[in-house]
Amino acid sequence: MFEAAELGRKVSKAEFQRLEPELRTKLLETQRVDTRGITTSAFWDETDEERERPTAWRFWRCMPERGKIGIFFGSWYSEPIVERAFGELSKGEFELHLDRIASLERMLSADGALILKLWFHLSKKEQSKRIDDDRKKEGRNTLDVSPFTKKFAKRFDQFAAISERAIRRTDTGSCAWRVIESTNRRYRDLATGFILLDALRRRLDSVAATPEPPDSQEIQIPDLEAARVTILDRVDLTERIEPEAYSRELKSLQARLNKLSWKAWERKHTCVAVFEGWDAAGKGGAIRRVTRALDARLFRVVQVAAPTDEERAHHYLWRFWRGLPRAGHITLYDRSWYGRVMVERVEGFAREEEWRRSYREINSFEEQLCEHGITLLKFWMHISPEEQLRRFQEREQTPHKAHKITDEDWRNREKWDEYQAAVNEMVAKTSTSEAPWTLVAGDDKRLARVQVVRTFVEAFEKALD
Amino acid sequence: MFEAAELGRKVSKAEFQRLEPELRTKLLETQRVDTRGITTSAFWDETDEERERPTAWRFWRCMPERGKIGIFFGSWYSEPIVERAFGELSKGEFELHLDRIASLERMLSADGALILKLWFHLSKKEQSKRIDDDRKKEGRNTLDVSPFTKKFAKRFDQFAAISERAIRRTDTGSCAWRVIESTNRRYRDLATGFILLDALRRRLDSVAATPEPPDSQEIQIPDLEAARVTILDRVDLTERIEPEAYSRELKSLQARLNKLSWKAWERKHTCVAVFEGWDAAGKGGAIRRVTRALDARLFRVVQVAAPTDEERAHHYLWRFWRGLPRAGHITLYDRSWYGRVMVERVEGFAREEEWRRSYREINSFEEQLCEHGITLLKFWMHISPEEQLRRFQEREQTPHKAHKITDEDWRNREKWDEYQAAVNEMVAKTSTSEAPWTLVAGDDKRLARVQVVRTFVEAFEKALD
Repeated sequence: MFEAAELGRKVSKAEFQRLEPELRTKLLETQRVDTRGITTSAFWDETDEERERPTAWRFWRCMPERGKIGIFFGSWYSEPIVERAFGELSKGEFELHLDRIASLERMLSADGALILKLWFHLSKKEQSKRIDDDRKKEGRNTLDVSPFTKKFAKRFDQFAAISERAIRRTDTGSCAWRVIESTNRRYRDLATGFILLDALRRRLDSVAATPEPPDSQEIQIPDLEAARVTILDRVDLTERIEPEAYSRELKSLQARLNKLSWKAWERKHTCVAVFEGWDAAGKGGAIRRVTRALDARLFRVVQVAAPTDEERAHHYLWRFWRGLPRAGHITLYDRSWYGRVMVERVEGFAREEEWRRSYREINSFEEQLCEHGITLLKFWMHISPEEQLRRFQEREQTPHKAHKITDEDWRNREKWDEYQAAVNEMVAKTSTSEAPWTLVAGDDKRLARVQVVRTFVEAFEKALD
Repeated sequence: MFEAAELGRKVSKAEFQRLEPELRTKLLETQRVDTRGITTSAFWDETDEERERPTAWRFWRCMPERGKIGIFFGSWYSEPIVERAFGELSKGEFELHLDRIASLERMLSADGALILKLWFHLSKKEQSKRIDDDRKKEGRNTLDVSPFTKKFAKRFDQFAAISERAIRRTDTGSCAWRVIESTNRRYRDLATGFILLDALRRRLDSVAATPEPPDSQEIQIPDLEAARVTILDRVDLTERIEPEAYSRELKSLQARLNKLSWKAWERKHTCVAVFEGWDAAGKGGAIRRVTRALDARLFRVVQVAAPTDEERAHHYLWRFWRGLPRAGHITLYDRSWYGRVMVERVEGFAREEEWRRSYREINSFEEQLCEHGITLLKFWMHISPEEQLRRFQEREQTPHKAHKITDEDWRNREKWDEYQAAVNEMVAKTSTSEAPWTLVAGDDKRLARVQVVRTFVEAFEKALD
């Protein structure tokens, strides 16, 4: 494959001086921002903050906003290729990385990002020549040789074969690779510029990204009585717990959770918990019963509200990637990425093809958390419409609770059926064996809290066993 | 001092239940946001990303925006106190930390932040009791004992003495300490709530922060001819370099810089460089001659433009703290924190007391960089007004340069004298022996570039020697 990039392409100095200013002007016109809209990120030596999170975290933290350009020097390809070349990854593991990369690129691309992948190629001969030059001239006048060049050059053939596989596997329609012959610096720079210019122009001309084929919809079952029974209907809302038993059990569970959380910290075991549920279902109260058991240094509660401007300018998963805890810590999300398939779906903030494809995106996100060894808990706090009404009315009458009830809550309540359909589909599509949903019977607040804290305790015990 | 916090203050359960909802309602009214405006940060185990930068970096990255509340669990006090208690800091070093803390707090406070410092006190006896309880009950029903509690309890007396010193030294009018007796949980929580409520209310009533006494102005020397000679006048703008000599020398310097930058990376030696100068003085060209010598993984260029919304909602130094490089890396600032005493001063974006106090703030910031072992370079690219005019006209006539010249540049040019006064004062007040300004003779672009690259080479050679 790389033969096509060893043809000896050259640009003369005179030609370069003629073409370069023109290209530069056109790029500036097309891009409409100057270097301030461009950020360059180099990906090589991972920090411990990066190592303590799933691999993709370091890329998400550098993602450019909409309208901006991010130059990634090194990328999600570098580490798998290097590790494979040095035999640290098996063939199967390497393929798994490529799968994950393809799915990340598809996701960003579907979200409107233009992804340009440039491979700068040097022949084996040319690389050796540069290393020799560097040695002979004692480092004078050669700027291309880094401390790694020699180490990598020894495995040139492995690198070539592995890179070729990576390029072929991920060379898709919307995210194609461009291999650039890089022996002649002037040719390399001009080629890069023209590829960039061409890609930007074509994207601007086509207005929007090529639409992804929409994910398939649920097949509707004819309106039989049995088909109307949903996952949520199976939650038993009639059960109750006595106040004394509650108090005793909660205290005992909290003490166990406290010790487990320190043990998890010592072992650098991370936990992410998601709380979703009907308005007034008791999310906040349940979260407080969990955090009461935890040292303030070990956890963080993230309240998910409408996205900020900065968040809106990224893929919707960006803000959740950004908030992932360090190893050994616990993050509790009060509402979460599931907003995409609930409020954004029901209120029409996301288009149907957007929220439909997000089931797959969310599953892939959660898979990466679980693979990294994170314990992921997902709670749906369930209550009956009658109980919700009772709580709304109570809130309106209690001064320090009145701020918790707004017109929006009443409006959401009117859409109970639509939300119910969304919740059922959400649970059906995202309850996986690694990260199942816990459906919490919430009509009795005390019972719900005990169930939540117990789920934490059991999950930690299982993980730390 | 802590005797006053060992008086056995208690709140009964009934009293707590009466006062707590009222306090909560009032706090919500006063704060006008709910928990979404509050972020909690715990400061204890430093990450390597934090260790690779000056100590204060980890606090700056968690600073709340204007209008938000940041709860710091542990703080800039924790590490010095713990290290002093375990004998890792000498008395003198500890005092230096307290000085730096006082100056940070004064700076944030002058910028409008309300700083509440709460010390939660337990007597030696009460602490022992809790540790005993934890042991006896095998961890059941006690949540207050962390893995550190015992280790720290053994040095209770040292901690008490050292903390008392820290509190006394930093208990200033605008940033006072409150010591809260914490044996009784209900008393502790209510006291905390009322202190917070009181402080918020008083601040909101007083509209603005107590004004800091303004920093003294320069004493004006009567209008003698000799007094008009400035630092900038001493730059010799007539010198020139031949193109061939330039080319040879630049290449040789770049090759040296390349090797030095890898050596610096190996030794984890960091460099921060600031480029300021007249419009069209050649900042960009000089920066490119430096970066041409560097591997893209080792450096980052930060273009400083008007602050974003997020940046505007913080102290003006926040965005520069945020951008500090990891150890072994180089950051080049194209314009910098000096905007505060130049464009913000001349254009009136900052009030006089604001930009006047920023000389001190900038010196303290740079002092922290230098103390951390960072090489700090500051370039003022100087040209004559005649040369500037020539370049403006040339830019207007060259297509790929036309975007670089705007009406604003012409307007700035009219304020040459005001800017000149600002530059002279800036250099006079912030050129320190650790971080001197390099005044670059810029009328000959080539000469300027050689001077800049040579300054890098010499600074690295000195630092790595």
